[in-house]
Amino acid sequence: MITCKVIGNVWATRKEKSLNGLKFMIVRRTDLTTDKEFDSFVAVDCVGAGIGEEVLVTLGSSAREAFSNPNTPVDAVIVGIIDGSES
Amino acid sequence: MITCKVIGNVWATRKEKSLNGLKFMIVRRTDLTTDKEFDSFVAVDCVGAGIGEEVLVTLGSSAREAFSNPNTPVDAVIVGIIDGSES
Amino acid sequence: MITCKVIGNVWATRKEKSLNGLKFMIVRRTDLTTDKEFDSFVAVDCVGAGIGEEVLVTLGSSAREAFSNPNTPVDAVIVGIIDGSES
Amino acid sequence: MITCKVIGNVWATRKEKSLNGLKFMIVRRTDLTTDKEFDSFVAVDCVGAGIGEEVLVTLGSSAREAFSNPNTPVDAVIVGIIDGSES
Amino acid sequence: MITCKVIGNVWATRKEKSLNGLKFMIVRRTDLTTDKEFDSFVAVDCVGAGIGEEVLVTLGSSAREAFSNPNTPVDAVIVGIIDGSES
Repeated sequence: MITCKVIGNVWATRKEKSLNGLKFMIVRRTDLTTDKEFDSFVAVDCVGAGIGEEVLVTLGSSAREAFSNPNTPVDAVIVGIIDGSES
Repeated sequence: MITCKVIGNVWATRKEKSLNGLKFMIVRRTDLTTDKEFDSFVAVDCVGAGIGEEVLVTLGSSAREAFSNPNTPVDAVIVGIIDGSES
Repeated sequence: MITCKVIGNVWATRKEKSLNGLKFMIVRRTDLTTDKEFDSFVAVDCVGAGIGEEVLVTLGSSAREAFSNPNTPVDAVIVGIIDGSES
Repeated sequence: MITCKVIGNVWATRKEKSLNGLKFMIVRRTDLTTDKEFDSFVAVDCVGAGIGEEVLVTLGSSAREAFSNPNTPVDAVIVGIIDGSES
Repeated sequence: MITCKVIGNVWATRKEKSLNGLKFMIVRRTDLTTDKEFDSFVAVDCVGAGIGEEVLVTLGSSAREAFSNPNTPVDAVIVGIIDGSES
């Protein structure tokens, strides 16, 4: 998983049917041990994450396992809200 | 998912049979928060996206879930047309 | 999918049994809209592509869907020969 | 698989239910033959790895195979603790 | 698939049970058409590859298909030993 900061959201009226009702957040990967700047991408929120929060994002086919319907065409999901870290 | 701009299309007469009838669009990844230039690639269109539109693209095995036949050998699908974003 | 140019081929006598009879082509990714140089890799040919041709390559688990036996340990397949593009 | 050094850990109270009880370690990829610095990310620990240890990490859908429940939305798992290497 | 050179091996006493008996080789990706230097990583050997040999490596979930037990948490496998190439 990667750690990301939630920085916004995006909406799409015309979309693949099984995506209806999902929340699409713009997230930017972070490195908890450096200040390196990464590219942003879009992840579906499963845990009620808000803008500005540091989150845990699962990528690829594993992301689909967070849905009750694992056949959703999604490749990035916010699976946790980070409370703290130690390194 | 990543956000992309549709910039063209590509055609192939000789192709794997299960790809017949699909629309292959050339898309370029965008970063909604910066002007960074990314490489272009090819995604199958599932939502009627037109050239110039900003779209949501799902990658990897999750892309196949957008098809009625999930055994299609496709690894990138346009799953939504972006109406707006906030960041 | 990505667009690639077929630039050669590679052979291996000792290989995992299910790979017998497959054609392993060396391909180099191309960007249809720029002249950027990418790294080369190996893709299995499913459509009779020849050296010098521009092709469509599917990566990852989706590549396996191009085979009658989807349990073949292959992660890159040439699924189409590009006739033309517009961008 | 990639080799990584365990450099810390991260915790998240609000998370996808099936992640309860898992240990989320911050790891940084290493190259056993060079000193190159890579980015850090988060991997679930399956073998009791401690901070400072050199470990083997499996990525992607294969990571899920390390769990008794392969439907866990996890894409990176520590599958071994490296005792030594030769190159 | 990518072409790699086998440059060493790594061992781990404490590891996920289903990894017992596997040979973990350190490999470095090569580009058959250039001298570019890539990072090294770890791949399981399925074909009896020795140090110094040029091999074909399959990545991701497709790598698991090389095992009689496809539920092994492995994401990189040596599936062939390269005898020659033409480009």
